[in-house]
Amino acid sequence: CNWRTLRHVIIEDWSLTACLGIIMALLSFTMDLCIEYIEDWHDELLSLSKNVPSATSLVTFITWTSYTLLFVITSTVFVHFVAPQAIGSGIPEMKAIISGTTILKEYLSLKTMIAKCVGMTLSLGSGLPIGKEGPFVHVASSVAVSLSKLTFGWSKNLFPQEVRYTEVLATACAVGVACTFSAPVGGVLFSIEVTSAYFAKSNYWRGFFAATCCAGVLRLLRVQLPSKDDFLVAFYQTHYPPDSVTPDQLPAFAFLGFIIIPIGVTFLIAALTFPLGYGKYIVGHLKHRDALAHFFHKCTWSVSNESHPLKCGAKLLHYWTADGTVSIFVTLSLFVVAFFLLTILCNAIPIPAGQFMPVFVIGAAFGRLIGELMVIAYHEDGSNQAHMHIVPGVYSVVCAAAFCGAVTHTVSVSVIVIELTGQNVFILPVLIAVLIANAVCSYFQPSIYESISKIKG
Amino acid sequence: CNWRTLRHVIIEDWSLTACLGIIMALLSFTMDLCIEYIEDWHDELLSLSKNVPSATSLVTFITWTSYTLLFVITSTVFVHFVAPQAIGSGIPEMKAIISGTTILKEYLSLKTMIAKCVGMTLSLGSGLPIGKEGPFVHVASSVAVSLSKLTFGWSKNLFPQEVRYTEVLATACAVGVACTFSAPVGGVLFSIEVTSAYFAKSNYWRGFFAATCCAGVLRLLRVQLPSKDDFLVAFYQTHYPPDSVTPDQLPAFAFLGFIIIPIGVTFLIAALTFPLGYGKYIVGHLKHRDALAHFFHKCTWSVSNESHPLKCGAKLLHYWTADGTVSIFVTLSLFVVAFFLLTILCNAIPIPAGQFMPVFVIGAAFGRLIGELMVIAYHEDGSNQAHMHIVPGVYSVVCAAAFCGAVTHTVSVSVIVIELTGQNVFILPVLIAVLIANAVCSYFQPSIYESISKIKG
Repeated sequence: CNWRTLRHVIIEDWSLTACLGIIMALLSFTMDLCIEYIEDWHDELLSLSKNVPSATSLVTFITWTSYTLLFVITSTVFVHFVAPQAIGSGIPEMKAIISGTTILKEYLSLKTMIAKCVGMTLSLGSGLPIGKEGPFVHVASSVAVSLSKLTFGWSKNLFPQEVRYTEVLATACAVGVACTFSAPVGGVLFSIEVTSAYFAKSNYWRGFFAATCCAGVLRLLRVQLPSKDDFLVAFYQTHYPPDSVTPDQLPAFAFLGFIIIPIGVTFLIAALTFPLGYGKYIVGHLKHRDALAHFFHKCTWSVSNESHPLKCGAKLLHYWTADGTVSIFVTLSLFVVAFFLLTILCNAIPIPAGQFMPVFVIGAAFGRLIGELMVIAYHEDGSNQAHMHIVPGVYSVVCAAAFCGAVTHTVSVSVIVIELTGQNVFILPVLIAVLIANAVCSYFQPSIYESISKIKG
Repeated sequence: CNWRTLRHVIIEDWSLTACLGIIMALLSFTMDLCIEYIEDWHDELLSLSKNVPSATSLVTFITWTSYTLLFVITSTVFVHFVAPQAIGSGIPEMKAIISGTTILKEYLSLKTMIAKCVGMTLSLGSGLPIGKEGPFVHVASSVAVSLSKLTFGWSKNLFPQEVRYTEVLATACAVGVACTFSAPVGGVLFSIEVTSAYFAKSNYWRGFFAATCCAGVLRLLRVQLPSKDDFLVAFYQTHYPPDSVTPDQLPAFAFLGFIIIPIGVTFLIAALTFPLGYGKYIVGHLKHRDALAHFFHKCTWSVSNESHPLKCGAKLLHYWTADGTVSIFVTLSLFVVAFFLLTILCNAIPIPAGQFMPVFVIGAAFGRLIGELMVIAYHEDGSNQAHMHIVPGVYSVVCAAAFCGAVTHTVSVSVIVIELTGQNVFILPVLIAVLIANAVCSYFQPSIYESISKIKG
């Protein structure tokens, strides 16, 4: 019996968990590569169509739009015919499965997984503002179930299947989140908060182990790419000076948490009450990665003084002010509103889509807006730059975390943000804003995942 | 009824939780100040006794020793007569109370709390290698119970007392850990891992809120001190370059996890089987803070080339090599062995004492040793410095985390380390080492807290 236990521990627990992490890392890496290729072709097609001598701007527009449309429609059709279960985020369904309230037929089959992967790659490549963190939780769960079926074959009746099942799924959810952001700690915590009400400590290490395997392999793979030289560095590495958070700013961060609430509530209601099937023709070309890099940049956009140490580079300002003709406040507000509406519309398309990343980007843009306003407000105050270091990028990070926390009702978003940015100067502001946004928001609306569950029945 | 619920939420939940955090921050701050004064007087006394013309080195020795002895004995006597329940760490007892297996009489009374605070201040000030994280968990729990008794007075029978009690205690444990290291996230996770087998998500935010309040107030207080200018900065801020962790080093970090095991097991056995009442006369003058700052420094100790960018400052080398006469490997090994034995001896003194910090320091010293050996090994290999950046400080951090993880059987040590050092370049190495050390060590020995519970019955 002891020998059997050991075999169980080594084979089923450790190697299964490690395998799950490694497979998910490979899947995530491959998908990211494909998505990048699709995006690059899109850009190339645009420049090609521009270079055709007789092309008008209408032709360029149609080329651009139809490319996106092609991919979104292919994704919709593929998912519809192969496995309609692959539509949507995946987190609400996983929550239902883990809590044991529903058994969804075919939801964790291999077919659904393939449909989800393909559909997600196509729709993300087309440039829609959707996330991949919810779908990845679903994919990881499918992979985990397939893997444990393999081992069940030759170690039958060792442990009751029901118990194993929940354990394996809880681990899979952790890997799913960790894989998207390559944030092992935050991933485990987020998955716990989102999927379960009670949590067994015995599952804890399993989640951490799988997430660490996944993050490790992912980073090792990323370093192989010739264009990326960022090994073991965060996805959105920030470079704020350590004194960018001063005590006088703490009330401002707490206030951010309060501002977030009306937006969060509006977003939730709008996202969920939007008539289905309307958003098929929406096209947007806003790459999350670039937008976030801009918002989190340590420079201050609204500084006009050329000699200021935090003056932005010309390229960034050119993009957001259209060569100085438009105020950044106008462009930022427009970005927030447009992205807000686009994300809500995208929720309605029947493709595999997550909500986390778009919500995060909206929060970042809004935070940048507030941060720049703060800079202006304190400069008019008569006090010059040296007195109070307001780094608008920090507001952007804090606000992104608070908005995500408000919409998903989780605290662990703060850990994910710390891991994403690779810095932890702002851990206290982030925690303050997330907690306040979270606490007050929870009295108005259930979390987005719970709301989706309710609507889907 | 709705009004009553609201009152409960606002008064009992929010303000009670915030109060707990703030009171603990004030307590922690006052104690730290007192401890620093006692330590400073110790140093002053030493220099005074040196300056007396007729003093021999024996007199100096006796002065130094008797000062420590005085404080340790005062602490022992005080605790013995006021409240003997205050002896020891506190985490094993809290675990027993939360799981509901035992009711310890007078354990959470105000008298015990005062005895613990005074005893801890005296014994920490005397310079013994003991920690304050376990005792702080106990103190926080006592404060929480007193606070909730206050509110019970005028909102009786609103909620069943038993339920509230467990909730409040779980929050208190989180605050206790968070307060010691000013690490809100790691504190909450560590307290969950150490005190409970199952964890209710509904307690989650309460722990985070209290811990954030505590960390916020603590940092605001620290910034008031004239000598400290580190606001919102980590306790042991490190300054490693982002590329200090390269993929080729990952196996080395995993290997560290394995090396840790025999040491961990030996430590546990030795710490617990040591005859009681023997260590009363041990004196050590090793300040954790300075030692850790040395071990975590980004420079490389064993570099002899003067022009090397990572060459250490003369002061640090002077301390550890005695002006170049002794190899750093000898001094480091001696430090590890001496600290190891001292910590075990200190466990036997009947004073309030934690195990976390000493274990952390031993791990850091051992990691520094391994890191320096790695540097030597790779330099002899013929490859010059530019090729592989081995930063021994990173090994020190990783090893400290792994050793703590092995002894306490927790994964969240990795989060605490990230928060302590204020950097997260090494999150992946830390996780790898902690998981391996943890997993293998758990097959040999229960965690230190469980072992103490068993011995105490």
